[in-house]
Amino acid sequence: MTDLLISESEIFRFAYDALTAAGVRDDVAQTTARGLWRTSLRGVDSHGIRLLVHYVHAVKGGRINPNPNFRWTQTAPATGTLDADHGFGHAAGMSAMRHAIALARGAGAGFVSVRNSTHCGAMAYFAMEAAAQDMIGLAFTHATPKVQSPGATTPFFGTNPVCVTAPMQDDDPFCFDSAITQYSFNKVRQFREEGKPVPPGIASDINGHMTTDPDAAFQLLPLGIYKGFGLAMMVDIFCGLLSGMPSGDEVSSMFENPLSERRLLGHFFGAIRIDAFLEIENFKRQLKRNADKIRSQPRLDPNQPVMIPGDPEKMIEQQRRAAGVPIKALDMSKFEALAAELGIDPPRQMEHAAST
Amino acid sequence: MTDLLISESEIFRFAYDALTAAGVRDDVAQTTARGLWRTSLRGVDSHGIRLLVHYVHAVKGGRINPNPNFRWTQTAPATGTLDADHGFGHAAGMSAMRHAIALARGAGAGFVSVRNSTHCGAMAYFAMEAAAQDMIGLAFTHATPKVQSPGATTPFFGTNPVCVTAPMQDDDPFCFDSAITQYSFNKVRQFREEGKPVPPGIASDINGHMTTDPDAAFQLLPLGIYKGFGLAMMVDIFCGLLSGMPSGDEVSSMFENPLSERRLLGHFFGAIRIDAFLEIENFKRQLKRNADKIRSQPRLDPNQPVMIPGDPEKMIEQQRRAAGVPIKALDMSKFEALAAELGIDPPRQMEHAAST
Repeated sequence: MTDLLISESEIFRFAYDALTAAGVRDDVAQTTARGLWRTSLRGVDSHGIRLLVHYVHAVKGGRINPNPNFRWTQTAPATGTLDADHGFGHAAGMSAMRHAIALARGAGAGFVSVRNSTHCGAMAYFAMEAAAQDMIGLAFTHATPKVQSPGATTPFFGTNPVCVTAPMQDDDPFCFDSAITQYSFNKVRQFREEGKPVPPGIASDINGHMTTDPDAAFQLLPLGIYKGFGLAMMVDIFCGLLSGMPSGDEVSSMFENPLSERRLLGHFFGAIRIDAFLEIENFKRQLKRNADKIRSQPRLDPNQPVMIPGDPEKMIEQQRRAAGVPIKALDMSKFEALAAELGIDPPRQMEHAAST
Repeated sequence: MTDLLISESEIFRFAYDALTAAGVRDDVAQTTARGLWRTSLRGVDSHGIRLLVHYVHAVKGGRINPNPNFRWTQTAPATGTLDADHGFGHAAGMSAMRHAIALARGAGAGFVSVRNSTHCGAMAYFAMEAAAQDMIGLAFTHATPKVQSPGATTPFFGTNPVCVTAPMQDDDPFCFDSAITQYSFNKVRQFREEGKPVPPGIASDINGHMTTDPDAAFQLLPLGIYKGFGLAMMVDIFCGLLSGMPSGDEVSSMFENPLSERRLLGHFFGAIRIDAFLEIENFKRQLKRNADKIRSQPRLDPNQPVMIPGDPEKMIEQQRRAAGVPIKALDMSKFEALAAELGIDPPRQMEHAAST
């Protein structure tokens, strides 16, 4: 089915209107809508505007506090904690990253642990903020247990993403934002809906045996098995343990728990000042040089460019700025129902039609 | 062939004697020998005592400076740089990690970039030092280009390892120390020597096509292709770019370049004070609780324990403390030749024989 197209400004408008209509405080609604807009614009559809309906219902259900009091405590020149008061992870995360950047300005590096948070969307949103300030950005969050432990039959950790950014000369930043599994479980659900097999090495069944049957797929395999598992445990140490939140297999479920229940998530954000190590222009020039050298390595397939992390998102962003953000008809009908529920305008489609 | 057995104390003695006989300054020889001993004891044979012969010849060839002047510069409360003056990476790395720990004591976090360094062995040696001080430890180094870039036919980055440690209550620390490839290229060489196929998804040939033929294997595939590649680029940013050293495909080769040539490697070390975020005993108790929960997850194979990162090394360390460190006959003959060359006692075998 042909996707519908919505302009990027309309994505932001709809998210912001929906959040404020649901009673979310203006600054929190702004930062959250901006996160959804940026994420959809960059093509990370799993974490973009699609989640708006869930978020609004989580506010109405009582899980997400629409008027949070973010409590910031600096604990040392380079460290601090932020209590998110169960508000949107997008806004709490951005506040935490800005504190990390401010700490790094003084101390060379800044690290902030966030507690009592909720889902925060794509980690690139936060880490890019540090790159924009000529710093290396780090952003981690833990997630619902869905990744099989090596040698066990069951999951313990979530897909616990790691995001790292760094600024480049005359280019958008390097941005590596990756779960520790090859695919998300949503991707497995997509194979299920399309009746396609899951590629080998991605998922296993309820007994822990690897499967390509999308209906039998119950959990995800970590990248490189014990290697991805080690990264997942590292992320949980930073996000669950340092924040004092539930960790490992006790991390709450986004979709299976009642929307009245708090998520009690933890995140971890870092900023490292590059000019505490060497002259910033030297760094940015050399990173750009390496990126361009990689992009011009001999190609395996002459028609497929060699890319560095962040390049696919940059390409999609350019397309979508011009042509709009594609929205599935099913999601559009959910947006229209949400608009009716909240008494706001539904997303307006772009004038021209295009298939994506 | 049955391996020979050398006691752990004899591993240290031989390494220390060889380094001092080669003219390495006492404190540098101590720290380097200790690194080789710890690494062999923990079963990481690729980075342990086996490398001693290479190191001694690199000192004699002029690549490694036996009497380095490590120049430390603090640049902000949480950051600093260490110029290794082409001395042993083991000693420079330990000095850098101790500076990172000292910075973290004051600032909550400490990060040190090392420049003008040489091979530093296994990263766990350094990161464990932070865990012993109740901190999270981070240690990265870049390496010789050997990892195929996604979509390209050629390598750009090395196997660029990432190591993270954290202290646990009544247990050795969590220690995740991993290259961004499933196996090292030495492992591929081992398949070659044994005439065995390389498992699929590990290596590719000189044209960039995946191969299981150990003789055709020319480069390694990154874990999860673009995911491991992103981690490799992150490590190179921390190690090559922040240090101002050659980076990416310009990192020197350990074995192919003349032993008179400097390596010009960069490393990056970090320490984060846990009690800047929450009470340390709370953290250590919870990490131990999670570790034990993972270890008691239902097993896929009843005879195979479920382990967390660092557990295999702990098991091997216990065995080797009691039974000695197994050394291949070929390596032993190289050690004997080295001992003759340097006029020191060769490693003494343990009295009892055992096969491993």
